[in-house]
Amino acid sequence: MDAMNLSTHISSKFNEELELVRNEVLAMGGMVEQQLQDALNAAVESDSELAQAVLSSDVRINEIEMRIDEDCFRIIAKRQPTAGDLRLMLVIMKAIGDLERIGDEAERIARVALESFSNKQQKDLLGNVDNLGRHVLSMLHDTLDAFARMDVEAALKVHQEDQKIDREYEALMRLLMTYMMEDSRSIPKILNVMWAVRSLERIGDRCQNVCEYVMYLVKGTDVRHTEYDEMEEKVRGDGE
Amino acid sequence: MDAMNLSTHISSKFNEELELVRNEVLAMGGMVEQQLQDALNAAVESDSELAQAVLSSDVRINEIEMRIDEDCFRIIAKRQPTAGDLRLMLVIMKAIGDLERIGDEAERIARVALESFSNKQQKDLLGNVDNLGRHVLSMLHDTLDAFARMDVEAALKVHQEDQKIDREYEALMRLLMTYMMEDSRSIPKILNVMWAVRSLERIGDRCQNVCEYVMYLVKGTDVRHTEYDEMEEKVRGDGE
Repeated sequence: MDAMNLSTHISSKFNEELELVRNEVLAMGGMVEQQLQDALNAAVESDSELAQAVLSSDVRINEIEMRIDEDCFRIIAKRQPTAGDLRLMLVIMKAIGDLERIGDEAERIARVALESFSNKQQKDLLGNVDNLGRHVLSMLHDTLDAFARMDVEAALKVHQEDQKIDREYEALMRLLMTYMMEDSRSIPKILNVMWAVRSLERIGDRCQNVCEYVMYLVKGTDVRHTEYDEMEEKVRGDGE
Repeated sequence: MDAMNLSTHISSKFNEELELVRNEVLAMGGMVEQQLQDALNAAVESDSELAQAVLSSDVRINEIEMRIDEDCFRIIAKRQPTAGDLRLMLVIMKAIGDLERIGDEAERIARVALESFSNKQQKDLLGNVDNLGRHVLSMLHDTLDAFARMDVEAALKVHQEDQKIDREYEALMRLLMTYMMEDSRSIPKILNVMWAVRSLERIGDRCQNVCEYVMYLVKGTDVRHTEYDEMEEKVRGDGE
């Protein structure tokens, strides 16, 4: 009975630790989401203070990433979790790497926004980016949501959304290219905007990664590098 | 005595498993290095067959990444390693993510090479990229070497090399931009080349990541997001 109590105690302490890490990841996700939102707002509203705030929030995101990594390491070393719990730890360590790099991309967007405030034309150009930006932001939001609720169906849906983002990205790039060809003096400015657009597209890819981790975690099947149909089959094929 | 034998046996079996994973990682590194070398050669020598080979090698690299991940998971679950061994497992899982994405960037370069064969001017442009490409390739080689030998000093040196790569990248981008401004019809082609240049710069960043893992593994101190001076101090400060 004592032993059982002890085991319950250990297990509930373990659960507490897991919950703590999980909350840290969600907090980190929230910070990154805010960072992207601020970067987009800074770009569209020409708010240089906000753009600066995005750049300086990077330090805090880096710190939380390293802390979570260290926490996971300590939990694995101390608790020696197996099966699902271990899988969760390892997935978290991968996911926070993606989140941190989404933050880096948001920072790149903020830098572009910062460079554009002296220039009316580029401000207009950044307006063009806003649609794609909002789409990617909502994809990031849904990704974090799927992760928080460990919702495989949501993860699958968000994952598929990236195809639309890729199409919008292609169209926007073509548009920017025609602007360039019409007025060669605008090339440096438009190139700057293109980097921001590219960053948005990359954020979509990162969201896909996180969604793949959710599917792996819940279904125990690795869906990375898998076509959508096959992914759907793998994820929905069993236990439904 | 029996128990001791058993323990030696378990430990040597464990060592065997670790060694196997380590070799898999080195093999994966070699594949990625080859992929980048082939992509660069394909671009410079207009070898479309070679470019195709780069694209198709992606599948094998993805497979080996997933296998190594699975091996690490199994070893951690079964052997419950602590301290250095656990750290090694976790670092390997992070490092192969970077290696896989270096492969993706090589693939992007091969795609650019493939699109350029109909066009004499772009072939010349890709010649410009070759210097940066060779530099990044040698950085990747040195990174894998530092990883194989767990050589902190080498990792530190390679890490610093990325500054030079960034400067070359900036200069090349400026050059490409002037080409664009001189002849607006060339814009789509030069943009294509710019993506390849960007991919090379990203590979440099990935190499830095792997070098940081080496320092973390050997010195047990997390040097991510650290300025060079501080990194040097962290890495050389103790045990030297």
